[in-house]
Order: sequence, then C-alpha cells, then structure tokens
Amino acid sequence: MRITDIIEKKKRGYRLSPEEIDNLIDAYMSGDAADYHMAAFAMAVYFQGMEASETAALTMAMAHSGHMLDLSALGDLSVDKHSTGGVGDKTTLIVAPLVASLGGCVAKMSGRGLGHTGGTIDKLSAITGYKTALDEEAFIRQASTYGIAVVQAGGVFAPADSRLYALRDVTATVDSIPLIASSVMSKKIAAGAHNIVLDVKTGSGALVKTLSDSRLLAETMVQIGKDAGRNIAALITDMDTPLGFAVGNTLEVEEAVAVLGGSGPEDLQEICVCLAGEMLALVHGGDPMQWRDRARVSLSDGRAMEFFQRWIQAQGGDARIAENTSLLPHAKHSMEIFAPATGYIAHMDTQRVGHTSLLLGAGRSKKEDIIQPGAGILLAAKRGDRVLQGDLLATLYSDDKDAFASAEEELLSAFVFADAPVVDVPLIYETIR
Amino acid sequence: MRITDIIEKKKRGYRLSPEEIDNLIDAYMSGDAADYHMAAFAMAVYFQGMEASETAALTMAMAHSGHMLDLSALGDLSVDKHSTGGVGDKTTLIVAPLVASLGGCVAKMSGRGLGHTGGTIDKLSAITGYKTALDEEAFIRQASTYGIAVVQAGGVFAPADSRLYALRDVTATVDSIPLIASSVMSKKIAAGAHNIVLDVKTGSGALVKTLSDSRLLAETMVQIGKDAGRNIAALITDMDTPLGFAVGNTLEVEEAVAVLGGSGPEDLQEICVCLAGEMLALVHGGDPMQWRDRARVSLSDGRAMEFFQRWIQAQGGDARIAENTSLLPHAKHSMEIFAPATGYIAHMDTQRVGHTSLLLGAGRSKKEDIIQPGAGILLAAKRGDRVLQGDLLATLYSDDKDAFASAEEELLSAFVFADAPVVDVPLIYETIR
Repeated sequence: MRITDIIEKKKRGYRLSPEEIDNLIDAYMSGDAADYHMAAFAMAVYFQGMEASETAALTMAMAHSGHMLDLSALGDLSVDKHSTGGVGDKTTLIVAPLVASLGGCVAKMSGRGLGHTGGTIDKLSAITGYKTALDEEAFIRQASTYGIAVVQAGGVFAPADSRLYALRDVTATVDSIPLIASSVMSKKIAAGAHNIVLDVKTGSGALVKTLSDSRLLAETMVQIGKDAGRNIAALITDMDTPLGFAVGNTLEVEEAVAVLGGSGPEDLQEICVCLAGEMLALVHGGDPMQWRDRARVSLSDGRAMEFFQRWIQAQGGDARIAENTSLLPHAKHSMEIFAPATGYIAHMDTQRVGHTSLLLGAGRSKKEDIIQPGAGILLAAKRGDRVLQGDLLATLYSDDKDAFASAEEELLSAFVFADAPVVDVPLIYETIR
Repeated sequence: MRITDIIEKKKRGYRLSPEEIDNLIDAYMSGDAADYHMAAFAMAVYFQGMEASETAALTMAMAHSGHMLDLSALGDLSVDKHSTGGVGDKTTLIVAPLVASLGGCVAKMSGRGLGHTGGTIDKLSAITGYKTALDEEAFIRQASTYGIAVVQAGGVFAPADSRLYALRDVTATVDSIPLIASSVMSKKIAAGAHNIVLDVKTGSGALVKTLSDSRLLAETMVQIGKDAGRNIAALITDMDTPLGFAVGNTLEVEEAVAVLGGSGPEDLQEICVCLAGEMLALVHGGDPMQWRDRARVSLSDGRAMEFFQRWIQAQGGDARIAENTSLLPHAKHSMEIFAPATGYIAHMDTQRVGHTSLLLGAGRSKKEDIIQPGAGILLAAKRGDRVLQGDLLATLYSDDKDAFASAEEELLSAFVFADAPVVDVPLIYETIR
C-alpha cells in the first residue's frame, strides 16, 4: 500500500491494520515516507483518532525502530516511572531513591526538557559532577548495585518517535491522545523496565488539561503496556497548580532534598509516596497502600536519603549537597513579587508559571538554549491560600536582571484572586491499573 | 504569528485573516514554512474547511506568488476556459476555435496531464510540429491575430500553487473544496484572461463526485473570480460517463476534428456549444442561448474548422490533419473488447475507464513518464446503451501488446449491466453566474 493511501485511509476514518502502520513507520525510517507525509498523517489522526489496536501497533513499531534495552539482568525488579510533564515536577529525584530503599531497581532513561522547565536530567545536571551518560553495561551494573541509575536517553531509543515528536511540535499535532500515548509508551517499552508507573498530569499546567482526556490517555497507555507484557499502572494527578513551591533546576533539587530529609511541601511528599507505593506494589506484589506506609517511614527515617546520596555519588555527583544545598549553583539576582490585592488564590494558570521560569532562564525554547541552573521561582503561596495585599507571593531568580520585568508581569497574570475560599481539588484523582 | 500557530488556529476551526494567509504563503515561498507545515495545514483545511474570505485570500496569495500575465493588449476580449478534469474531455480543441470564430480571443495557458489521461497540451502534442511554448510577446500577438493561442503553462504562474498541489497529491489532501477552488483560480487569475468559464465536472470520473460538492466548488470559484474583478461563469457538467467515445491523445484529436467538421458525438458537440455560448456571452454580452445557436452554425458551416486550421498552422503544427487524421501518430496494436452479457449499461466507473487508458500508455503515473500519443480507448457503447452479449464494447490501442490483458480486465470492471433501461442524467446540470 502506498504511503498516500495509508494517509487517505486514516483521513476517511478507517482503521489501519498493524501491517499498514508498520509499513508507515518503516518507510519513515528508510526515507520512503517524508516529514510531509507524517505531518499530514498526524493531522488526520488528530481529527479521526485511533482505535486501541492502531495505537498499540504504532507504539510497537516506533519502539522497534531503534535499540531495545535488555534489563533482564535485573530480573523482575526493574521499574520505571514516567510523568507526562508538569511545572515543579521533581518527583523522580525523590521517588527513585525511595523505591530503591525498598528493594526496587530504578533503571531510568530520562529526557532533557524541551518546554517551559528543565527535565529530570537538567535538574540532576545542577549537581556538580553528575554524569548524565553511562554506557549500557555500567548503567545496568549501577542499577543492580545501588538500585538506581538515571541517565540521559540517547537517540537510540524509539528514534521514529523522536523524529515524529519533533515534527508534531512544529505542525500543531501534539495534542492527540493516541499520538501522545504511543510516543510515551514507545520510549518506555524500548527502555526495557518490567514495571512501569505513569504519572498522568491533568489541569492548567499539563499537556492534557481535562480529567476525561487524562483518563483516556492513562487508560490507553496502561492497555498498551499490558499488551506489551509489562506490569503497569497510572496515577492521574493534579497539575492545576505547581507541584511543591520550587520551579527551576537548583531550586527543585533543594526542595527534593528537603522531602528526602523528611520535610518539604506536603503535596510533593504525598505524590512521591503514592508513586513509590504503586511502583513497589508492581515490583513486589502486595497492597499499594501498605507500600505507601513503608515509603513514608523510609522518608522519615533517612533510608531514602541514604540511597539518594549513594546514587549521586555512584554517578559522579557531589553528594554533599544533601547536607549543604548551598553547594548547588545559585542565581546571581533575585526579586520578590508581592500580592497586588487581598483575597484567596482561586486559580493559577500553571502553564504561565512554567513560562515565567522559561523567561528567567530555567528552561529552553530551542534545543540549543543553555539553561541557568539557578534560575526559577520559589512560590510563597499557591491555589487556595489567602493572601493580604503586599504579602510575598513568590521570589524570582535569574542571572539576568533584565528578565525580571517581563517575568513578573507573566507570573502575576497567572494568578486569579477571589473573595471567597476555594474548593479543594484532589491531589490524586484516580489510579488506573 | 508563528507558522505553527497558524496551523493550530485552522485546526481548531477559527477563521484565518488575510494577513495570516499571506504570511503563510510568503513563508512557504521563502522557505520559512516547510512542506511538512503545509501538509499539516492542508489536512487541517480538509477537516475544518475555509470560509469564503479565507479561500479568496489563499487564491490571491498564490496568484501573486509568481508572474501575473498582462493581457490588456487584448482588451476585454480575452477569454479562458478551465475544466476540473475528466475522461475524454477534449473540449478545448473545439471550443477555442469555435469562440475565436465568433470574435472571442482565447489566450490560454494549459497544463500537461498528470493523472489518468493526457491534458490539452498532450493532445496538441500529438499534432506534428505543434509548438507548446511561445514567448509572452508571441503568445499575445498570436492570440490577437488568430483569436487563439494555447501554450503550456510554465512554472511562472502561481508557483505556490504548483508546489502546494504537488504536495497535496502525495499527502491525501486533494479532495478539499477550498483547496481545489483556490488552486484552480490562482492559476486562472495569474493567467490574466478578463473572461473565464469554468467547466466543473461531476460524477464517477470527476475529482468531485457529488452534485452538491460540485455546486459548492463552482459557487466558490465564481465568487473568487468576481472578487478579483473578472467576468466569470461555471457550468456543472456530467462526468459519470466519458465525454464522447475517444479517450487518448490522437484518438481525442480525431474526435475533436469530427466535431469541428460538423459531426462527432452529440454529447461532446452539445457541451462545446454550451461552453462557447457562455464564453461569448461574457465577452460580448447578450444571451448565452443565442450565442449557442451561433456556435452551432459555426460548427456546421466550417468557420470553426477554418479557425482551428489557422491556429494549428500559426503555432507550427501540421494543419493537414484536419482533412486527413491518418497523419496523426497511431498505436501499433489494437484489441477489441466484447460485451460479456446482454443488457443495459447501467453505470460506468469513469475513473476506471481513465485508468484503463493509463495502463495502455495514454497518461502518466509519474511526471517523467512518456505518453504514447496513439494509445487509448475508442468506446462503442456508453451508459444507457443496450448491448447484446458479444457486441463490440470498445477497441483498445497501445504500442505495447502486453498492456492489453490488464487493460481489458480494468475496462470490463468499469461496466455495470442491468436488465432494465437506465434513467437519463442531464449533460449539463446547472449554470452558475
């Protein structure tokens, strides 16, 4: 079947066969299908959707377009976590040692951020000496010895997805649930972990902004994982307000260290405990609730912090930051932002908060941009809090003083104040297993 | 506005401003917008459509992307005709001299065919010596002196459309009414004629297969033409059965010569007379019905044939073919096809008839393919005719004997036989002015 006929078939709303989808992805990798074919295809998928069998076939075709990591040396203990992305999401820094401290083996290939805020690898890069690249043997050996290895995913995993994702980004075809699901899952399946927990964010700071779409995305991804023979579960969690108070790489490492030390923001603690509980229940079996309790103990008694330090040290980083975060790189300048009015914070446009951190230098708008590790935002108040006019709302950090004016304007535009108290929303909406 | 944002806006169903559409086409020509952007945009237009103001803006942006021909030397007499394409459509060969014989000035830039059958230029190329290229001055001079000049449209007119059309062809985005309308009209407006008659085909052999879509296409194009200050009308004509009996370049020239000689198939005569009537009414004013009558006279008294011969001679071709069509190149081999059953021809899948002619060598499946001028089909029966089993259905012509087996199979699959007589459909459905 010609590439054009495959696009035509999807355009008309027919279901594509696994062979047709394989042919399309093979042709994309061989050069027989061009970017313009895939752009038209992605737009047709945006409008016509995909059935479960098509999404599964697309996922597996993209996963098999590159290297498939073999983690069998870790037995059934290998566990991965993936977040669909949010503002202030530093959970991997906490959850990885937490799960390792309770016997899981977190062998994780992570991305740099392209978007408002840095990715996990950018956050880890704020730690002096941390090596974001290990060869495959060293990666598996470290995961086996220390229970954790987190490195930057090279271009070897699901390269078809990498190309398609970059293309979707510039052709307005990002927001398609089957395309998001197959993109995430192709990378996860290629990365080899036997157990996978997905953190599907929902709300104003998430890629998918409504609960019903987030649920559909989570269900789609869980089904793909099961079809591929993996243990998998998904939590749908709130991203209508930033997670924790810190947004920006060094700031987020500091906040993660606080949680590993038994303190830190409650919402961040709670999400980490729930993610760890789900991961451990997949790895060991048993009730996720009981694993949550054990995770809480591991945070409070210092075990999780021990595993964090060993991990950072094993991967070449300066583990002293766990006791002294002033060793992390900090921004040259800061600026305080005050509440313009008295009232309750009824809503925060969380994507704007993320964009503020980008303006301050904490993220990349182009692949080539260089991140300032110390840049970002430390919030003093979040959704639901009552503030008085003139109260501190947030502190901005940047090496570039000139960035403050537009960042302040952007951040203030993200806040909506109301006279009456605000109804609480759940931190965790559902778990899909 | 970024290109991606323009695509996003169309994807979400918002109306684009003329400035946004201009920017998009400018960016496409400058290289700032890539083929993949335009492919995603075209697919979004397929699903979301375009309002009249958007289609008009797209048309004018593409028209102005290249050279705009100035036909003011011909006063208000310049007239162009465009068919949306069908099987056996050789009307230009007849209509051009017919209109010229009654005072119109047909200065026409025509395309080579890419599709099942040859285009007008391919048909004219079957005539030994006919020059398909003239410089602009010679083109206008010939049109002024002889009332006709028909040359191949170079790449200079609406190059943005040429690029977008080629892209749509491979990205399954051809069948979008606003995109078809803007494609046709951008070329027509750039080609400069003051008066334009559109022959919008409808039925199984047409690009647009339903009457309601054909009407929408015709209305859209007529409105664009009026907005651009042109005199314009559209006929919606039947393409549910081939026009005339001949499909293929030499065969079609022979049939056109027959009509110019006052004989030939009735349906072909009638459509030519109606198109000429409409064109002459635009050029001179007055009632199209009366111009039809005068056109009939011009066919029967030999005036149209005289103008045909002068035209062919002026453009370097062997005008003796008008008296002796055996001077045209003919195929080496032929094969007769007989009716497999007795009955009425209830339906002909006209696109398949076109595809049969392609298999025989009369068309191009790739731009580089070389056409056999003598190849094609001479039908002996069409929709509505009653045939007895074993009656002659058609004769196939090709230089390549091996092509006959698959061509016969393809042609027979196009016929549907029934026991009862078939309801006639109109040859001309409507006129939109």
